Amino acid sequence: MDGEFVVTRRVHFSETDRAGVLYFAHYYRFMEETEHAFRRSLGLPIITEADGREATWPRVATSCEYFAPAHFDDELELALRIVEMGDRSITYEVEFRREGRRIAKGRMTAVYCTTANGEFQSATIPESLRQTLEGAMNSS
Amino acid sequence: MDGEFVVTRRVHFSETDRAGVLYFAHYYRFMEETEHAFRRSLGLPIITEADGREATWPRVATSCEYFAPAHFDDELELALRIVEMGDRSITYEVEFRREGRRIAKGRMTAVYCTTANGEFQSATIPESLRQTLEGAMNSS
Amino acid sequence: MDGEFVVTRRVHFSETDRAGVLYFAHYYRFMEETEHAFRRSLGLPIITEADGREATWPRVATSCEYFAPAHFDDELELALRIVEMGDRSITYEVEFRREGRRIAKGRMTAVYCTTANGEFQSATIPESLRQTLEGAMNSS
Amino acid sequence: MDGEFVVTRRVHFSETDRAGVLYFAHYYRFMEETEHAFRRSLGLPIITEADGREATWPRVATSCEYFAPAHFDDELELALRIVEMGDRSITYEVEFRREGRRIAKGRMTAVYCTTANGEFQSATIPESLRQTLEGAMNSS
Repeated sequence: MDGEFVVTRRVHFSETDRAGVLYFAHYYRFMEETEHAFRRSLGLPIITEADGREATWPRVATSCEYFAPAHFDDELELALRIVEMGDRSITYEVEFRREGRRIAKGRMTAVYCTTANGEFQSATIPESLRQTLEGAMNSS
Repeated sequence: MDGEFVVTRRVHFSETDRAGVLYFAHYYRFMEETEHAFRRSLGLPIITEADGREATWPRVATSCEYFAPAHFDDELELALRIVEMGDRSITYEVEFRREGRRIAKGRMTAVYCTTANGEFQSATIPESLRQTLEGAMNSS
Repeated sequence: MDGEFVVTRRVHFSETDRAGVLYFAHYYRFMEETEHAFRRSLGLPIITEADGREATWPRVATSCEYFAPAHFDDELELALRIVEMGDRSITYEVEFRREGRRIAKGRMTAVYCTTANGEFQSATIPESLRQTLEGAMNSS
Repeated sequence: MDGEFVVTRRVHFSETDRAGVLYFAHYYRFMEETEHAFRRSLGLPIITEADGREATWPRVATSCEYFAPAHFDDELELALRIVEMGDRSITYEVEFRREGRRIAKGRMTAVYCTTANGEFQSATIPESLRQTLEGAMNSS
């Protein structure tokens, strides 16, 4: 799985902190936005249904390493790859780059779940969905 | 280093998402708030000065595992421990509990730096600061 | 209606921006937190039910004037008053103070609604709820 | 001043709340992003300098009316107009539309200031900056 999916995303004023840099927790929002742009690029809806309930992907593990700060108005490149895919979960890696130089790297593992009233029930990723995700990454 | 420092923190409406749960990136804000409450409890200012510049603690690595969702208005217990301390960095672990049950666990490694104009320069943690941090954890 | 309900709320690091002050949009989150603390103080649940649906209070109008900046770690006093109450709506005013001095003033008008799937239907505020809200403000 | 400047902006998952809609405070972030895109479109830097200090535009008054909810993944049109311009301040109005239909309308008044250490000093808007802003709005 060598392909990567890249979007650019500007750092907004509201996302900086008093140290003058992109606040560390917001990197996770950037990662999720990249994941959603990736799914949108495949024609995959982000909210789906399964067994008459809404299906969604709550995160079970996330992490990020920060190599250099990002600043207001920086236009970052966010490069997403699928690094692992299980029966019920998927792990993405997102590299943050500025003018081609890596400034951060994050990971998210999300589990396919049906949901109602703020509770989740994990389920097997539907075969067609899995194939689309895997196919896109291999061919990009 | 066995002691832990505990605060309670309610989940605000603005911190929930359309799945009805505490949005995953906000856990990192909760961790930092706990760190700051810990420092405040020791009488340590959070923003200090060194060599005529502001000293601060940018994060170089963060991670979180999510075991069960948190919901609006939940009153969470956030239990912080120092798990590692180097010459220039400190690693905190924060356990998220609801009614005593662990629902998430996170880590942050922060580096002691002087800062100006959104750039950071790492430095050795001043000895008195280190002793206060270590002492508090051992005696709690 | 002369009474006011006051809470204190610290400005977190994540809520500052690169200008070194509390980011202007976050004042609205502070207002809502004050409203929720007010309702909690009355023993009123924030999420209720009506006609088998969840009842909630979406905002239809909000505003804020900013007189002086707030900074990281400031402990603000948030003083809430009900300034208007209709059959279906309520208007709160929240004054932001630091050491007794007013630094901002905001307003929120919220409409009592039942909700499902991200859509709202306005409804008449239940009589007992209205009486509790009005009574608390008059007697405080 | 009839012209308007329009950008589109998608509602992210992180910006929704447990009622399933775009959280009301985030509308203000959308407005500011539109203002910054407008300035960028004119080739105007958002952060400038004056008298050896950084110049910026803190908000002194903001407001928003909400006519219909916005939802996750909605692609909103944000239409900005300058509605007033004083010697030291500017007032923007931003209309939020979805498929051409107005769903919210907000205002922000910002004051031209020089800033240092989280404090602001208002100043007269430089003539060339004023002319660029006015010219752009009239000719669009």
